[in-house]
Amino acid sequence: MTEPAIVLGPNQYGKAEVRVVKVTRETARHEIEDLNVTSQLRGDFDRAHLAGDNSHVIATDTQKNTVFAFARGGIGSPEAFLLRLAEHFTSEFDWVSGGRWEAESFAWDRIEVQGAAHDHSFVRSGRETRTAVVVADGAARHVIGGLKGLTVLKTTESGFEGFPRDQYTTLAETSDRVLATDVAARWLYARREGEGEGEGEGEGEGEGEGDGDGGPDYDASYERVRALLLEAFAQRHSPALQATLFEMGSRVLEECPEIAEIRFSMPNKHHFVVDLTPFGLDNPNEVFYAADRPYGLIEAAVTREGVVSPAAAWEGIAGFC
Amino acid sequence: MTEPAIVLGPNQYGKAEVRVVKVTRETARHEIEDLNVTSQLRGDFDRAHLAGDNSHVIATDTQKNTVFAFARGGIGSPEAFLLRLAEHFTSEFDWVSGGRWEAESFAWDRIEVQGAAHDHSFVRSGRETRTAVVVADGAARHVIGGLKGLTVLKTTESGFEGFPRDQYTTLAETSDRVLATDVAARWLYARREGEGEGEGEGEGEGEGEGDGDGGPDYDASYERVRALLLEAFAQRHSPALQATLFEMGSRVLEECPEIAEIRFSMPNKHHFVVDLTPFGLDNPNEVFYAADRPYGLIEAAVTREGVVSPAAAWEGIAGFC
Amino acid sequence: MTEPAIVLGPNQYGKAEVRVVKVTRETARHEIEDLNVTSQLRGDFDRAHLAGDNSHVIATDTQKNTVFAFARGGIGSPEAFLLRLAEHFTSEFDWVSGGRWEAESFAWDRIEVQGAAHDHSFVRSGRETRTAVVVADGAARHVIGGLKGLTVLKTTESGFEGFPRDQYTTLAETSDRVLATDVAARWLYARREGEGEGEGEGEGEGEGEGDGDGGPDYDASYERVRALLLEAFAQRHSPALQATLFEMGSRVLEECPEIAEIRFSMPNKHHFVVDLTPFGLDNPNEVFYAADRPYGLIEAAVTREGVVSPAAAWEGIAGFC
Amino acid sequence: MTEPAIVLGPNQYGKAEVRVVKVTRETARHEIEDLNVTSQLRGDFDRAHLAGDNSHVIATDTQKNTVFAFARGGIGSPEAFLLRLAEHFTSEFDWVSGGRWEAESFAWDRIEVQGAAHDHSFVRSGRETRTAVVVADGAARHVIGGLKGLTVLKTTESGFEGFPRDQYTTLAETSDRVLATDVAARWLYARREGEGEGEGEGEGEGEGEGDGDGGPDYDASYERVRALLLEAFAQRHSPALQATLFEMGSRVLEECPEIAEIRFSMPNKHHFVVDLTPFGLDNPNEVFYAADRPYGLIEAAVTREGVVSPAAAWEGIAGFC
Repeated sequence: MTEPAIVLGPNQYGKAEVRVVKVTRETARHEIEDLNVTSQLRGDFDRAHLAGDNSHVIATDTQKNTVFAFARGGIGSPEAFLLRLAEHFTSEFDWVSGGRWEAESFAWDRIEVQGAAHDHSFVRSGRETRTAVVVADGAARHVIGGLKGLTVLKTTESGFEGFPRDQYTTLAETSDRVLATDVAARWLYARREGEGEGEGEGEGEGEGEGDGDGGPDYDASYERVRALLLEAFAQRHSPALQATLFEMGSRVLEECPEIAEIRFSMPNKHHFVVDLTPFGLDNPNEVFYAADRPYGLIEAAVTREGVVSPAAAWEGIAGFC
Repeated sequence: MTEPAIVLGPNQYGKAEVRVVKVTRETARHEIEDLNVTSQLRGDFDRAHLAGDNSHVIATDTQKNTVFAFARGGIGSPEAFLLRLAEHFTSEFDWVSGGRWEAESFAWDRIEVQGAAHDHSFVRSGRETRTAVVVADGAARHVIGGLKGLTVLKTTESGFEGFPRDQYTTLAETSDRVLATDVAARWLYARREGEGEGEGEGEGEGEGEGDGDGGPDYDASYERVRALLLEAFAQRHSPALQATLFEMGSRVLEECPEIAEIRFSMPNKHHFVVDLTPFGLDNPNEVFYAADRPYGLIEAAVTREGVVSPAAAWEGIAGFC
Repeated sequence: MTEPAIVLGPNQYGKAEVRVVKVTRETARHEIEDLNVTSQLRGDFDRAHLAGDNSHVIATDTQKNTVFAFARGGIGSPEAFLLRLAEHFTSEFDWVSGGRWEAESFAWDRIEVQGAAHDHSFVRSGRETRTAVVVADGAARHVIGGLKGLTVLKTTESGFEGFPRDQYTTLAETSDRVLATDVAARWLYARREGEGEGEGEGEGEGEGEGDGDGGPDYDASYERVRALLLEAFAQRHSPALQATLFEMGSRVLEECPEIAEIRFSMPNKHHFVVDLTPFGLDNPNEVFYAADRPYGLIEAAVTREGVVSPAAAWEGIAGFC
Repeated sequence: MTEPAIVLGPNQYGKAEVRVVKVTRETARHEIEDLNVTSQLRGDFDRAHLAGDNSHVIATDTQKNTVFAFARGGIGSPEAFLLRLAEHFTSEFDWVSGGRWEAESFAWDRIEVQGAAHDHSFVRSGRETRTAVVVADGAARHVIGGLKGLTVLKTTESGFEGFPRDQYTTLAETSDRVLATDVAARWLYARREGEGEGEGEGEGEGEGEGDGDGGPDYDASYERVRALLLEAFAQRHSPALQATLFEMGSRVLEECPEIAEIRFSMPNKHHFVVDLTPFGLDNPNEVFYAADRPYGLIEAAVTREGVVSPAAAWEGIAGFC
């Protein structure tokens, strides 16, 4: 009996973390866009792996150049920019059947000078990082908005009670604790009619027109989702981070018909009440020690009944989840 | 027409990054094991998300306690330790249908004192981090060994030629360049006969017997894989990182029948030849600038023909690939 | 001739990075203070180093406990909190002649819910980190405010011309470039009359009264300095980062009589214009590559003529500058 | 009465973190040197700060180019390389009176292939980072070797007893604990006869001859110091990290006459014994939780009696200690 042959499995490659800054200076009031872009191609790259034949390998340097060249025409929303890149690579090279494009985008505020927002001087806002992913899988385009590093905390209206106790359980129940997390969320935009049939959302993408793809206004969606996540976190009593997560996701799906599904990865950043009794002091939930590790980690998807989640949208290749 | 209901999708939760250090002091020659363990449970946690009912929520604090308690009996290989945790949680709680357990493990060397390895003083080796994952999916147990941060470099026998040129291509071909990468690899151990039938590899796992699960010797496999990866990187001319990756993976599958599949994520850490001609100097590949970003990123699986990769082994829940 | 004896030089020790979060919940509108506190003591600790005699070693655990206990009474400005700690340790233990206390403080904004700032839910602002240092040196107290991670960028009104050219110079002159930096600044508050004579600013410090030390309003100073730094960065043409740094420091000293001196460490975060000509595109300072390393690094103090800077205020012990 | 004028205080500037990799390929057995170099100049840069006049500002880009150009001739020890840079900048530009040059250097091991060390393939050793600093202050040259990230741990022969107890003390005494730290050390080489008189150690430095400056063999010193630090840590019972630090420093000064002084900054990385009694288990110092923050921090200099430490060697400019 012979051993089965060794073969190439799923694969992708490209250029990661292209730090592109676009300044628009048509008027004295400059605009700034600041992205970290990763481009990864999928398709027929077998001979590169198996035979050292690079004739299909669009150099990662070329991918980087393409990012910079495409930025010349304007970026617009990160999602629209990634769609243009996807369109380019899949239409230009017939052995490229798809890919994954990702961006982080960093927000800048105008510096205030004597009460007025400055024309060309900015301070990085430091708020959460916006993320975007476009996955091209044949004719399909999956667009995933997101954010990470949105750190929130509530000082009350959070508890954790009624959990099962086994021989390894020592945690006391509490009806009042600090709840803190760094929200990482990714939401999949619903596909529109006619998508995936090959004519696609790519029309006109090359012109740098922002979101003119007939799709949603990704920037507006982003701000709406962000606001809903914060509101849902703040408003309701939290019986556990799981319930808060689902509440946050539900709120987004209720208010945003353009979104099919939202997924979260949220640490439970423990804030422990410090025992001050040895020092003759009480501590009615006023002084906390903010711990680093270990931390709880709650991950879940919130979806719409009967809507099948496209596996291709969510998977990486190397499986390093 | 009514909107589809909003429902809970795939989910998991647990305690992340439990930093457990186990010292074995049966004799004057102490042993040290140093792990960073993450435990995540999957199963029926719907009511926690939907109704604020925590009666199924095994506290993440309890999961942490369990890690420490299980370490009391000895850790053994990270894989074996995670298998014991998996067995415990899936057998103890009938609503826990599976989960994902992960560990990083850090190597320590004995300090040398006057030529002899010291009994109880250690220096962290600083070499790569070993990783391990166990996924329990019903009766199935997927065991994935791995490493990350294995930084390698070759100063010659690497080139990049014959790639396609389009309007965005400026990169010159080269037959001699520096090739450097941080190897991250994960390899899936082949399932053994009878696995997944419910009788399982868990027998006797609670006794802290190390790898006594009838499975492979995970520590020996680790050292063999590491050595093979280094050898394959070193030995052959590299026409591109893709070919080197496949070479590395093939070598492992050829030599390690216990491994079903191996996946890689490897940056191409660019080392650019500095142009010294303005200073009247030549530079025959001697002085390089080591760049940070952007970097190439090559990801692929190397598998055996006809062997189906179990999707459950590789996926995360939240889809943050 | 005998060798000189080996002796202990300058030293300090303590507990670093105590992550204390104080919630004030006197009314339904909670307040949050979030600090990372380091306490280091100086004095007569010779026997601990030389003879293994710990009778003078106030445990670092005790220092940590003291931070938490003092937080119970309220934190107030970081500077005032550190002054209270300094007073405690130097007055309680007669062999403690001084020390260095440092804090980072993290800002939180209230989450907005339906247009109103929420009572007990917060989102981390993500703007720069505020820093504070108090050095006690005998009876003297040096108070240093500061910030780090204030990332600013101007898209024009910055150049770099007229620099000397030698055999290693290849940089072109430019009258229009992007200028970006992460401002790290520390400012020393002027000492007030009567300080250092032993009666000191410590009076009443134990009561947790915030800044009730007869000193400046540190919180107000902080906001004023921050605004001035931003304004100065924005307003004036920058012929080099050095000139901008001095402008920023001058503005602070002009407007803030309570400040004796300000020091900066500012990277020049290079944004390189991408050459798009190979792609048939111009690039009139619109598309930039934001580089990581190397970066320029500009450091300077801006002071008042004739005012001697107290060396003790600025030095660390271990000399790891 | 007029306000005192605002003036420029101490300052320095340059290029930070130039990542230079030098490959020596004279024979088939290649050598690799991997450094991260920072160059900072001090001198008369007043007009750049005060008047926007850059005629004295040797561009940081020029400093970077110089690092690369000097590497062409070979690096040798980091200390010798920095001395050559110091000599160049202070002799080439009469307004440069001094400066500070710093390097990190990263070690690589040859990959082992079938028992033999490979000619041109390397794996990063991952052990601690070597550091070097040269400060030029007029004619004086201060050379400081160092290391950081040397993580050591002993599982016994460490205790902490006999410390004072006040109202905030809760820590129990212990005669047996885990002691762990990341050693950061910097040692100042003794100045040799005739130094600082202007004729200097720079002669012949331009030729890339390594340590041919009549000074110590810096590479040999480094290995000796590293070994002594490890030995001293391992060998003796530790009554507190302070005593261990002093022991480590003393050992170095005793054995290395070329070293004048050594300074340490060492965290006490707490490993807490986990209380397993709730689970019916004992824990005789076998299972530990490795904490992140807070940590103890012990800093001290070990010197030779009567030897005055040159302040200029240790200070940074911006005072961010």
